[in-house]
Amino acid sequence: MTGFRVLGVCGAARVGVLATAHGEINTPAFMPVGTQATVKGMLPEQVAGTGAEIILGNTYHLMLRPGAERVAALGGLHRFMNWPGPILTDSGGFQVMSLAGLRKLSEGGVTFRSHLDGSLHELTPERSIGIQHKLDADITMCFDECTPWPATEAEAATSMRLSMRWAARCRAVFVERPGYGLFGIVQGSVYPELRAESAAALIAQGFDGYAVGGLAVGEGQELMLATLETTVPLLPADRPRYLMGVGRPSDIVHAVARGIDMFDCVMPTRSGRTGQGFTKRGTINIRNARHAADPRPLEAGCACPACRCYSRAYLHHLFRAEEMLGPMLLTWHNLQRFQDLMRGLRGAIAVGGLSAFIARFEADEALGDIEPVSGMVEGESP
Amino acid sequence: MTGFRVLGVCGAARVGVLATAHGEINTPAFMPVGTQATVKGMLPEQVAGTGAEIILGNTYHLMLRPGAERVAALGGLHRFMNWPGPILTDSGGFQVMSLAGLRKLSEGGVTFRSHLDGSLHELTPERSIGIQHKLDADITMCFDECTPWPATEAEAATSMRLSMRWAARCRAVFVERPGYGLFGIVQGSVYPELRAESAAALIAQGFDGYAVGGLAVGEGQELMLATLETTVPLLPADRPRYLMGVGRPSDIVHAVARGIDMFDCVMPTRSGRTGQGFTKRGTINIRNARHAADPRPLEAGCACPACRCYSRAYLHHLFRAEEMLGPMLLTWHNLQRFQDLMRGLRGAIAVGGLSAFIARFEADEALGDIEPVSGMVEGESP
Repeated sequence: MTGFRVLGVCGAARVGVLATAHGEINTPAFMPVGTQATVKGMLPEQVAGTGAEIILGNTYHLMLRPGAERVAALGGLHRFMNWPGPILTDSGGFQVMSLAGLRKLSEGGVTFRSHLDGSLHELTPERSIGIQHKLDADITMCFDECTPWPATEAEAATSMRLSMRWAARCRAVFVERPGYGLFGIVQGSVYPELRAESAAALIAQGFDGYAVGGLAVGEGQELMLATLETTVPLLPADRPRYLMGVGRPSDIVHAVARGIDMFDCVMPTRSGRTGQGFTKRGTINIRNARHAADPRPLEAGCACPACRCYSRAYLHHLFRAEEMLGPMLLTWHNLQRFQDLMRGLRGAIAVGGLSAFIARFEADEALGDIEPVSGMVEGESP
Repeated sequence: MTGFRVLGVCGAARVGVLATAHGEINTPAFMPVGTQATVKGMLPEQVAGTGAEIILGNTYHLMLRPGAERVAALGGLHRFMNWPGPILTDSGGFQVMSLAGLRKLSEGGVTFRSHLDGSLHELTPERSIGIQHKLDADITMCFDECTPWPATEAEAATSMRLSMRWAARCRAVFVERPGYGLFGIVQGSVYPELRAESAAALIAQGFDGYAVGGLAVGEGQELMLATLETTVPLLPADRPRYLMGVGRPSDIVHAVARGIDMFDCVMPTRSGRTGQGFTKRGTINIRNARHAADPRPLEAGCACPACRCYSRAYLHHLFRAEEMLGPMLLTWHNLQRFQDLMRGLRGAIAVGGLSAFIARFEADEALGDIEPVSGMVEGESP
């Protein structure tokens, strides 16, 4: 059982604290993704330094390599990867469907071949919960089928109802311990009646938190937000709400305004590795030739080391020269940007100023990255 | 002009301090290699944290990308790469011969094609010194021809005498500034008379330091040390001596015993990226299956983060999973190991105990990596 306190609301948005076995998380929270027991290119203390209080681990990857038993024998995922804070693990369901080969879905679960070596494996609700237990996840996610997009209402209903039966099996085998929680996942694609049926089924079972799954799979922001508007009000106000796999800063801001408390996404880390930097004024491709001689930081005023200590010209050079430090620094900046955004959202909600915050956020993004003014470049350098 | 003070001697070995425009360097010193304006996979503050006080930059790489003028416009190499300490740059000569295409050597210099884009470039003594000046190197190296191995005595003589004429041209155009020094490079392959002729030619011109070049190119440790034994005594005692491109810990230890003060080598960084860790007990390939479940640190007692915070099992996992953090942590450890070795050497020389230090060093290396004792593994974990 995890603890959740709502400290303040602003419209549908909430600011709160989620208490777990390995520490407290201020919400709304963004969880950096540490797929293979590492947030790519970052030391755990650097991740924590950006303000991240919880990270996500991937059951599918970790069960295949190094294996849940190995991680358990080495003291659990926290100790294995030297992240002392809270960890949420996904159930493996989503990644089995997107990464593994030769999948076979049945009432029991999913059999599949490892994308690493072709070996045969099975994931069931019981096995997924068992693996997450071995990893010592603070927050365990129910094993579900992420309904593909697009899906007809009939397909979405069949898929969702299977996930609800699996959720009951997860609930039944989850071992309750203080500070450890199990989250259910609402499915139903973009069909409000299915979402309502799913939410009701989960609430009847009772979970420590409720995730909204099956979104950010190609439906677009408008449909995603519309689905949140009909789904979130059905979820218990006294439990955290987690929008899985989301997303861009704009997605996060608008989902928070609709009552979402938790997010995860590979975007800041994956984009960082390819040279895409997130700033208040939108994204910047640091590989672009216009940055080659630019002495300004990636984002003026940002507290991350990439912005405090280096020029755009240097970051550009690192990416052109294919140096590891480029992805390391851009990842760091992006994680800082996402955490700064969450901090800003929490502050805005706490003072009842979310609308103004969102208006400013959108105005900044609309500005776009400003070109250096010739002759002023020196004065603007860090 | 750089300053050099010998603080103590032990046989031929010396402990000293080299003063440059960007700070002091305790010798014997090992210089991590930052080829493309970054020590691969490391933040500058992490490099400094291992105890490194000076790093090496490569003129050949930096002149091609991002270009010396670009670096100069951005405030010089120190500011560009956020390394506030001393920097030594090589002359580009060695790397032109080993990396570039279509080389043409003449009395004037070398014309070559960039390995990046095939564009035509020229390096001369004057241009090399000019580039190193633009980079703002604390220590500039003379442009020379690194005599290939093997070379007949006649070939070695011709090559060495060209380098001596080039050294005079370097000396002539080097701009003297306080804290900035120019080092000459003794050539002559493994021929003592040629080495003596080269040393005399350089000493007659007068340099801030003297490098021994053309070694560690395949001649083996025995010939390398024999060459040092005849060459080093010919060099001024009041100037630092730099053995270029060396080397393994064993090479460093024995070269220090023969009076060498400075070293550089890609070995700790390059090996770190492929999973080879340097320890007191020799090298460890962390990818080896025997480390997969080993909860012990890479090297017990090592102060680096890779050893303080992670198990061999975790490092093994990172390399198997091709995670960036693996190369990052192994590089960090290796740089720490090399700097710890230099610190140990300096301490041993200062107290007149170098022989005992070397005996212990060799006994430790001979031990090899110790297997975990079954049943004691848990107790040994960090």
